Amino acid sequence: MQEIGYKKQVERWDVQEIVLRGKSDKNPFVDYNIFGCFTGKNEKVTVDGFYDGDGIYKVRFMPSFEGEYTFKVAGTFADEGAEGEFAVTPATEGNHGPVRVANTYHFAYEDATPYYSIGTTCYVWALQSDEMIAKTLESLKESAFNKIRFCLFPKHYDYNLTEPRSYPYEGTPMDSSVLTKENFGKYQGASEGNHWDFQRFNTAHFAHIETCILALRDMGIEADLIVMHPYDRWGFSEMTAKQDDLYWEYVLARFSAYRNIWWSLANEYDLFPKKSLADWERYAKMVCEKDPYNHLRSIHNCLQFYDYRRPWITHCSIQRIDLYKSAELVEEWREIYKKPIVLDEIAYEGNIQHGWGNISGKEMTRRFWEAALRGGYPGHGETYMNDKDVLWWSHGGVLRGESHKRFQFLYDILLQTPGIGLCPCEKSPWDEIWAVPEESAQKVKKVKDYYLMYFSFMQPSFKEYYFDDESEFEVNVIDTWNMAIESRGVCKGRFKVELPGRQYMAIQIIKVQ
Amino acid sequence: MQEIGYKKQVERWDVQEIVLRGKSDKNPFVDYNIFGCFTGKNEKVTVDGFYDGDGIYKVRFMPSFEGEYTFKVAGTFADEGAEGEFAVTPATEGNHGPVRVANTYHFAYEDATPYYSIGTTCYVWALQSDEMIAKTLESLKESAFNKIRFCLFPKHYDYNLTEPRSYPYEGTPMDSSVLTKENFGKYQGASEGNHWDFQRFNTAHFAHIETCILALRDMGIEADLIVMHPYDRWGFSEMTAKQDDLYWEYVLARFSAYRNIWWSLANEYDLFPKKSLADWERYAKMVCEKDPYNHLRSIHNCLQFYDYRRPWITHCSIQRIDLYKSAELVEEWREIYKKPIVLDEIAYEGNIQHGWGNISGKEMTRRFWEAALRGGYPGHGETYMNDKDVLWWSHGGVLRGESHKRFQFLYDILLQTPGIGLCPCEKSPWDEIWAVPEESAQKVKKVKDYYLMYFSFMQPSFKEYYFDDESEFEVNVIDTWNMAIESRGVCKGRFKVELPGRQYMAIQIIKVQ
Repeated sequence: MQEIGYKKQVERWDVQEIVLRGKSDKNPFVDYNIFGCFTGKNEKVTVDGFYDGDGIYKVRFMPSFEGEYTFKVAGTFADEGAEGEFAVTPATEGNHGPVRVANTYHFAYEDATPYYSIGTTCYVWALQSDEMIAKTLESLKESAFNKIRFCLFPKHYDYNLTEPRSYPYEGTPMDSSVLTKENFGKYQGASEGNHWDFQRFNTAHFAHIETCILALRDMGIEADLIVMHPYDRWGFSEMTAKQDDLYWEYVLARFSAYRNIWWSLANEYDLFPKKSLADWERYAKMVCEKDPYNHLRSIHNCLQFYDYRRPWITHCSIQRIDLYKSAELVEEWREIYKKPIVLDEIAYEGNIQHGWGNISGKEMTRRFWEAALRGGYPGHGETYMNDKDVLWWSHGGVLRGESHKRFQFLYDILLQTPGIGLCPCEKSPWDEIWAVPEESAQKVKKVKDYYLMYFSFMQPSFKEYYFDDESEFEVNVIDTWNMAIESRGVCKGRFKVELPGRQYMAIQIIKVQ
Repeated sequence: MQEIGYKKQVERWDVQEIVLRGKSDKNPFVDYNIFGCFTGKNEKVTVDGFYDGDGIYKVRFMPSFEGEYTFKVAGTFADEGAEGEFAVTPATEGNHGPVRVANTYHFAYEDATPYYSIGTTCYVWALQSDEMIAKTLESLKESAFNKIRFCLFPKHYDYNLTEPRSYPYEGTPMDSSVLTKENFGKYQGASEGNHWDFQRFNTAHFAHIETCILALRDMGIEADLIVMHPYDRWGFSEMTAKQDDLYWEYVLARFSAYRNIWWSLANEYDLFPKKSLADWERYAKMVCEKDPYNHLRSIHNCLQFYDYRRPWITHCSIQRIDLYKSAELVEEWREIYKKPIVLDEIAYEGNIQHGWGNISGKEMTRRFWEAALRGGYPGHGETYMNDKDVLWWSHGGVLRGESHKRFQFLYDILLQTPGIGLCPCEKSPWDEIWAVPEESAQKVKKVKDYYLMYFSFMQPSFKEYYFDDESEFEVNVIDTWNMAIESRGVCKGRFKVELPGRQYMAIQIIKVQ
């Protein structure tokens, strides 16, 4: 048996990594294989390992249970395999396991802690300089965000013409000095001047992304990995099926064991000129087969939704299609798809020229409340112009907007929901959003234990309620923009709630038990 | 021949009124008839007259041409008829004739002056005290409104429980002192305590409304008469077919000759519990037969549009059905109905508890611009709470909001449109509204003479345009909320327009000829 590196003790839902030496002749990425089998009292898991360069092979595993585990590693990567054993200790504070779908429309961590997604998008924050990455992490730390969407491949797009810190393959890119804001659109897909070996991964690129995933994990933030995207001048969006499959296998082998990852098969899948639905379904099949932990899986659209009814899709990852209605449609989508509705793009707060990137902080905050109270999960992004063309939506860095400051307030209120998740009340009037706990919606009860009413852009100066003659309710008036909560004491029977006649107000009504 | 009252000389599109004595025994409203035939060089028009009480009968006529006219009056109202002649003089300043549909989607006065409708709603302003009516007229005078919707019958509704100044029939109303904000909904239609003779009109009621129509006319404001509505505690919404027909005949005979009236068959036609589509079609047939001047005709919905494709309907009179999208749908409706789109209710600016009456001044102004630039006509209303429960939407009085102050600015810009009316440009990007002149849309021309771009709630900090290499354009940046216009000089080829990164901005681009 060869000398192997691994931890004798690992925390539940943490990564066990088996490190082995192996063959480095030929092309180890394609010519040799490696896999590991991990056995504990409650599970037996077989996973692919991967080549990490310099003759080093790795196999990663995330244990889902406490207790003793044994493992065996085999494959053509070396003349002999390896085996060993280790102990899985209880999860420590802040480690709740991976996020799962808890009750059709809502998420919870595997330890049953509710997960109310407050997402943001920074497409290539992980491919910026160390300094910028540190800034982004600092911004995230001070924010309420608990999910971030980002790409594994570099991005070629308006405001994104510079070179990434690294490339996923060995080779050399085209000369980017020819690019201008005016001509960049002409360079799409496999442009002239690129020389890549799509059979040899740049292991440093992937290792770096792993440090980013871990940094997020340690802040309690889910890494929603966008595995493919069409904003490309290098040809990564136009590889052959065989090359794609090699990439997917590599990505799955490297990242699956991180508890805080989600799979986003693509951003704007419908903008790839050379992929068919069959391609997406093939990648999905690989993810289902090769990720033994069943991380959340979805795919993000531009002009046309993917069919979110496909069984492999765990949740909708929606880009709004209508310029005016986005969060307002959550109920319709819940009805159609019967899955959690994540609004990963409801336009970005900012002031660039594009209509998807110039809504106000107030409108973004309104869309967040509207989405959350309708039983969905809103996503943020920022596209404010600045001297350095550094926009949060793409590069990360510093948050400049107004909406993000208000998400912790919303999040704290979401945490007060009895059970897991809000849903629209069947008794909602046409001009108010009445959110009630998902679990109470499933029970036929005249009066719910908890209501949250939201008035969106409307500015009523009062509202009147009547539930029954007996129940007593604590009533709070919430100013969602100014982040203030004002108690109105205990109400009973018919009652009137005075409001300030401003936009963005809500009322919280809690039944006294 | 009996002695008759009439004017020897009348202005084109003004009212000629023939006044005659007749029988006052039995019930002159039903037992006798009167009609007049007016003959000029270019037209011969027969109209019904009406009984105006105290043995007086009247026949009204609006001449559409200049020159000599003769008339004959006959009927069972008297033992002998009457005849005479008069001269029609040219229209004086401010008299442009009735409003007509000019070019499928837009209006013009009969003298071809474009009419850009800037409407408001004050349901029963005409049935308030003299003092309140004077206040309303004062407010209208200082406003940009050139159309007002109002009811002929009194109104029973939230914030509208007091007695009107008069009733349309002889009789006595129920005791309104029993009404409260809580119980008024129980009194609907023909409530107990009402005693009306639906065969005897209160002529003073109608004569008073005529003074209001004339006051509006003299300010250049169209009177959009809501002939029936369902907000009723007296039974006026539940009369028999025969009673309805008598009412319609009377209304048509009295009001048709006023050049500034429009017929709105009903407000919220779909809320009448006892009327069928056949009823509305029967009234429509009467209007078409009995109004020889073809005043504009429509009918207003609550939850479901009337079929605006019906040939008698000259324009859509829409209440928005979706809480979020209203003005945004103008293009769709234009496509479907091929008629002018008047958005008579896109929610009201205010702060009452109802979702239809609590949008902000900014949102109302946004909807006005959005509707106008999409080639439709927006309507205003105000529902701000106050000590006296006097709300513009119902009573008129004083305007309290913010949007109305910005309509003259919009109107002045609409007047700059070459030809008659704006329409959406077929080249509009998905995230901008590009309005171009309706007449240029009908010509296949690459570059239009005039563009108006609107960015609605979005806040771009610049926009870039390219039409062709040769054309020169005057470019103005318009702040629709702050009512400021800033010239950006003459641009050519590809050009960039810097914007302040605020909401509610527009750009006007005028081709240098």
